[in-house]
Amino acid sequence: MLVREMTVDECRAVLAGMRIGKLACARDNQPYVVPFHFAYNDNAHIHSPITHLYAFSMPGQKIEWMRANPLVCVEVDEIKRQDDWTSVIIFGRYEELPDTTQFEAERASAHEMFSRHAMWWQPAYAATEHRGESQDSQPIYFRIRIEKMTGHRAVGDLVEGQGGAKRPPTPHHWWDNLWTHGRSKTEKER
Amino acid sequence: MLVREMTVDECRAVLAGMRIGKLACARDNQPYVVPFHFAYNDNAHIHSPITHLYAFSMPGQKIEWMRANPLVCVEVDEIKRQDDWTSVIIFGRYEELPDTTQFEAERASAHEMFSRHAMWWQPAYAATEHRGESQDSQPIYFRIRIEKMTGHRAVGDLVEGQGGAKRPPTPHHWWDNLWTHGRSKTEKER
Repeated sequence: MLVREMTVDECRAVLAGMRIGKLACARDNQPYVVPFHFAYNDNAHIHSPITHLYAFSMPGQKIEWMRANPLVCVEVDEIKRQDDWTSVIIFGRYEELPDTTQFEAERASAHEMFSRHAMWWQPAYAATEHRGESQDSQPIYFRIRIEKMTGHRAVGDLVEGQGGAKRPPTPHHWWDNLWTHGRSKTEKER
Repeated sequence: MLVREMTVDECRAVLAGMRIGKLACARDNQPYVVPFHFAYNDNAHIHSPITHLYAFSMPGQKIEWMRANPLVCVEVDEIKRQDDWTSVIIFGRYEELPDTTQFEAERASAHEMFSRHAMWWQPAYAATEHRGESQDSQPIYFRIRIEKMTGHRAVGDLVEGQGGAKRPPTPHHWWDNLWTHGRSKTEKER
């Protein structure tokens, strides 16, 4: 297996195709990482060199922490097989989009992006009840300003895989093990 | 969909069944999150109230950062469907297992756990070439001491799902959207 660095355009394509990632923030040097849903407009970079991931959340720990320290890191990956995966890592900055005239256009744009995927945000609400967050509150709109982005893609080994062609399955393959141990219940329960 | 808090035993079972998670560290309050492979012995808590995730890595950014600041956060999840997922979050501490007599038993035990899953560690090597890490070096063994662990599990809504029974697919379901956008390439390319 070879791992190669992705171009910025390739990273953007991954972000545009995904809806879920991991958002890490930190307070007093204690990191905290949670899954989060986001929206990314792949064409935004045509109009501005600065692009963002858009998201929202009920008030709670991660919002408090990001308000106190806006430095964040986001990881988005897509794992298909052991030798076919991508991982994008973003260093960025939390920017809240409060409900004021100044951010009206940004909020409308974010809302439009969210609305294209009706109901995808439901778990953000559902989960709040049990993570010490209040459902009485209004969701907080925010965006992550992308300051640095790197991506890596694994591709089949040239010797073993003839430049990416399918190769026969290898017994005791790490990914088979991972799959068996991590996902076997899914198959059984279906 | 309802989200309920998991017991510590349920969290342990998730860790024991998974091999990959996200490891977040921080330096100067800048978080950094990467995928990582780990091994967890589900029976360890019988012998000691303190349990660990075991892992190793080539020298590089995350090792440097965790040496400078041992506070870490780990997220491990298993997403089957929109209303059937688990997410475990660990606050912990990085503990290096150097190649000295003091840590001989711990290293042997870690190595034994890794060996049970032959080759699963290959990508850890492969990826190093492209993340500014050297392959000439020896891998660093480390463990994450689990200091606080919480888990959440989504279960089908009682009203909609008759206590967890399968319900018909909902159009414009957020998970369908997620799946379509995030995974459609997988299906096409297979």
